[in-house]
Amino acid sequence: MNMERDVFSNERDMAILLVSCADRPGIVAGVSQFLFEMGANIVHSDQFSTDAMGGFFAMRVKFQLAHLAERWDELNWQFAAVADSFQMQWRITQASKKKKIAIFVSKEDHCLQELLWRWRLGELQAEIAAVISNHTDFEPLVSALHLPFYHVPVTRETREEQAVTHLKLLQKHEVDTVVLARYMQIIPKMLIDRYPNKIINIHHSFLPAFVGGKPYHQAFERGVKLIGATAHYVTEELDQGPIIEQDVERINHRHDVSDLKRTGRDLERIVLARAVQWHLNDQIVVHGNKTIVF
Amino acid sequence: MNMERDVFSNERDMAILLVSCADRPGIVAGVSQFLFEMGANIVHSDQFSTDAMGGFFAMRVKFQLAHLAERWDELNWQFAAVADSFQMQWRITQASKKKKIAIFVSKEDHCLQELLWRWRLGELQAEIAAVISNHTDFEPLVSALHLPFYHVPVTRETREEQAVTHLKLLQKHEVDTVVLARYMQIIPKMLIDRYPNKIINIHHSFLPAFVGGKPYHQAFERGVKLIGATAHYVTEELDQGPIIEQDVERINHRHDVSDLKRTGRDLERIVLARAVQWHLNDQIVVHGNKTIVF
Amino acid sequence: MNMERDVFSNERDMAILLVSCADRPGIVAGVSQFLFEMGANIVHSDQFSTDAMGGFFAMRVKFQLAHLAERWDELNWQFAAVADSFQMQWRITQASKKKKIAIFVSKEDHCLQELLWRWRLGELQAEIAAVISNHTDFEPLVSALHLPFYHVPVTRETREEQAVTHLKLLQKHEVDTVVLARYMQIIPKMLIDRYPNKIINIHHSFLPAFVGGKPYHQAFERGVKLIGATAHYVTEELDQGPIIEQDVERINHRHDVSDLKRTGRDLERIVLARAVQWHLNDQIVVHGNKTIVF
Amino acid sequence: MNMERDVFSNERDMAILLVSCADRPGIVAGVSQFLFEMGANIVHSDQFSTDAMGGFFAMRVKFQLAHLAERWDELNWQFAAVADSFQMQWRITQASKKKKIAIFVSKEDHCLQELLWRWRLGELQAEIAAVISNHTDFEPLVSALHLPFYHVPVTRETREEQAVTHLKLLQKHEVDTVVLARYMQIIPKMLIDRYPNKIINIHHSFLPAFVGGKPYHQAFERGVKLIGATAHYVTEELDQGPIIEQDVERINHRHDVSDLKRTGRDLERIVLARAVQWHLNDQIVVHGNKTIVF
Repeated sequence: MNMERDVFSNERDMAILLVSCADRPGIVAGVSQFLFEMGANIVHSDQFSTDAMGGFFAMRVKFQLAHLAERWDELNWQFAAVADSFQMQWRITQASKKKKIAIFVSKEDHCLQELLWRWRLGELQAEIAAVISNHTDFEPLVSALHLPFYHVPVTRETREEQAVTHLKLLQKHEVDTVVLARYMQIIPKMLIDRYPNKIINIHHSFLPAFVGGKPYHQAFERGVKLIGATAHYVTEELDQGPIIEQDVERINHRHDVSDLKRTGRDLERIVLARAVQWHLNDQIVVHGNKTIVF
Repeated sequence: MNMERDVFSNERDMAILLVSCADRPGIVAGVSQFLFEMGANIVHSDQFSTDAMGGFFAMRVKFQLAHLAERWDELNWQFAAVADSFQMQWRITQASKKKKIAIFVSKEDHCLQELLWRWRLGELQAEIAAVISNHTDFEPLVSALHLPFYHVPVTRETREEQAVTHLKLLQKHEVDTVVLARYMQIIPKMLIDRYPNKIINIHHSFLPAFVGGKPYHQAFERGVKLIGATAHYVTEELDQGPIIEQDVERINHRHDVSDLKRTGRDLERIVLARAVQWHLNDQIVVHGNKTIVF
Repeated sequence: MNMERDVFSNERDMAILLVSCADRPGIVAGVSQFLFEMGANIVHSDQFSTDAMGGFFAMRVKFQLAHLAERWDELNWQFAAVADSFQMQWRITQASKKKKIAIFVSKEDHCLQELLWRWRLGELQAEIAAVISNHTDFEPLVSALHLPFYHVPVTRETREEQAVTHLKLLQKHEVDTVVLARYMQIIPKMLIDRYPNKIINIHHSFLPAFVGGKPYHQAFERGVKLIGATAHYVTEELDQGPIIEQDVERINHRHDVSDLKRTGRDLERIVLARAVQWHLNDQIVVHGNKTIVF
Repeated sequence: MNMERDVFSNERDMAILLVSCADRPGIVAGVSQFLFEMGANIVHSDQFSTDAMGGFFAMRVKFQLAHLAERWDELNWQFAAVADSFQMQWRITQASKKKKIAIFVSKEDHCLQELLWRWRLGELQAEIAAVISNHTDFEPLVSALHLPFYHVPVTRETREEQAVTHLKLLQKHEVDTVVLARYMQIIPKMLIDRYPNKIINIHHSFLPAFVGGKPYHQAFERGVKLIGATAHYVTEELDQGPIIEQDVERINHRHDVSDLKRTGRDLERIVLARAVQWHLNDQIVVHGNKTIVF
């Protein structure tokens, strides 16, 4: 994964191209030649291809193009021809355009606080369109920042029904990405289908260990020497979606479950923040049930 | 876990006391008072107690006692009375007495090499009594060091039968501890029962993730972002024994299975070496299915 | 360092004893016997002694004593006799008594926010008596939490003079410990002398590398592959005090100075939070220019 | 840094192109277009450019070209024209061609053993042309592997003179890269000048902390909480060359100098092995006093 710098002052003229397709000779040349002829300058490019994944090719290019906004339609229209010849899946995004995100939260605030803090610092390339919770605890915190807060109570019985409420809110605010900041509720298929690889969850274990509920209790029972946290895209199967990022922290026999929770909080917020940042920067390509993080 | 120094030049007078029992007031005082009255000097002591594990108490004391060898019987006999009054499980070992270990190995040599290298450096408080393998590949390596090498071929059909051969070898060499250095064969119950919490295995995953065969393939398929290795005591249930040590290494989408194996080798040998070292130094107490590593 | 649990519900009856003295036989026995005779129960004890540091001995015992408050004077008075016989430096603190801390901050809020967040969660065994800054930026943040905020502008010329103002504030609020949460100002000797090993600073490098100003710029120039953060007690010599905790994060050639600052922020707040927590829990003994963290 | 896979069975047709030059538009397009027109297929490419380093551009491309050996001269001759137009520094190497390395060693064998073990496993893309030592301790070890061993005693007085002996040996064996595996002797300028950015040293500290002799003693005195190791290219200024890789390990107050040495050995061999591997795979570009590790 890269840590990129903008070498041009004019961030407004920066764009990111993400492509994936079956591997074959000439793709890098085709793409870079196209950009050169458009008058664009490649700021960073990374590429991945492999036999093992079935001849899959993926590439991310960050480039600068003078008068990007004015030439936006031309750029997309012209690249469509290149993409067509390689049968690519692709998208170009303007680096200066912030994605609209919604944060779902329940009764624990550490992941929410972390995202809000980074957002205020300008670290997140996002507009926080809404914070949605099944509880009212964090309404004051969110409202104090002049962000919309919605209380949508959810029970096992009302889950499907409230997903409609959620969907309406997401549509109303034109939300692009949903972040589950320790939301602790199962997301119905209907919502997942509308946001494929656009719902990011933080699970408080080193997946695939300790799937499901109470992972810190499970970790304590098993006597592991490290605990972990995993950020992943949400799919229909619980805790089985493509993993974006994971990290671990050392523990020992003196830690009880409450110590694991406390230690785990630090892991969870860092791991989730990284995953959200990479997603917002268009650094992630999903292939099958895995992620390529450029 | 501690990293201890011997503050007295006379290592021969050093001993280690390990006790465990139900928790109650006065245990630390009782033990330290006993040692003081014996004329011993406590070099290091560590203690663990907890409600959560059901009022369990464990303690490790390293002490120096002049003329330890001559006073060995007296020491054990006298402490038995203290232990009795607290209904302790206990053992005292002489720090200078090396445990006899047998190393089981199959077709990969990295863990074996690591142990041999540390043994030659004097890092392992052990005498290598025998190296036992189901293949002959490493006979020259082992023989060159003037260590006994035994070739005991094993198939699924002869497993139980060969366990008898193994047991005879272990008894012949008065082996105290067995190290499975990527042995890759299931150990029959008969052998496990004879060496409870004395057979150390290295599993090439972050347990409990990826139990069983081909864990690196499993890790590759799941798309994890870290791979791990786990050293544990062998119990009847495969990969379910008390965990002694674990560690992880970061990987990314560019790593295929052979990269995972290569990266994993470095993890496996370090994790196994640490676990063996702690075991040899009498730093480990097993309680239920967990370890306390002092 | 330990991660301890209180095995008794009655936290009010918990106390911590910290002792240090020249090493000699019988100290552990003497202390544990004393506590046993007082009717106290040892919950956790850890001990350190070494030749290499000149026969130095240090010990930390956490114990429960029924009716601690009523027996406080008796406990201290009686232990004084034990301490005397071993010529110990010692102190006993009530675990339930929160230390009063003052946080000094300048223009960056990440360390302040981290401490405030953990304080609100109940993770810090502290009362925040005052937040003192040479700027007014964080007055709203602090005041919103109903904590006293003081603006004390400081220039090179007024440094000594303002230290008097600082001292008055610290005395007024009966402050026990000062945390420099990226305060970025030199602390005059007068203040340091009044708070020996009670002023904790976070330096944004892996000390002793990159002492002094602009450590991230220094790290960038040198081309290191890891950056670090160091929490230490403040002494008269800049960045030379006893180190309490350090940690590092991996970087690469793509990181410019602003990336280092961003990555470093996550390190700084975690490292400072750990150090402050250990200090508040009386886990630290300073010996010479080093710390023993139990 | 990448972890690359060869997607073609024909490793003999693989080549690596490394270029660096002043940044300007069209470089990626120029290079990839050239390779496409040659009929080559890009297997992996990575690129780095930045304002901060003064408009510097560097790129590494791994590609497959059928009949590489037969077309070698044509490839180099043709690329020279492209390189010329961008005023590039460049080199193309055949991935299957092993670099010839010499290992310098003194009285400690852990780094030597690590390199030999990886070499036997086929992990190092190198031919070990010679092992050179100022002592005879490891002659049996090296000779047993049928590798040339040279004993070249060195004192402060004979250092310059013996550098001539060294140089002759290196030339005789057509050595490309020198690895100082804890050689512990200063390398004279004459030798460094002949092998610019081709002599790799392992220093047993986290540089720039603890430059010079006895870094573990220095670390112990300062009371750091992590120790490190640094692999770097050797330049005339002691321990000041471009850093290739660093790593650290946690220690605590219980570790004395001999514990630091023991812990450090594990760090040193892993850090050196990584650096050597990246160098052998042509993953490193040196720019000023820094490395770019692709």
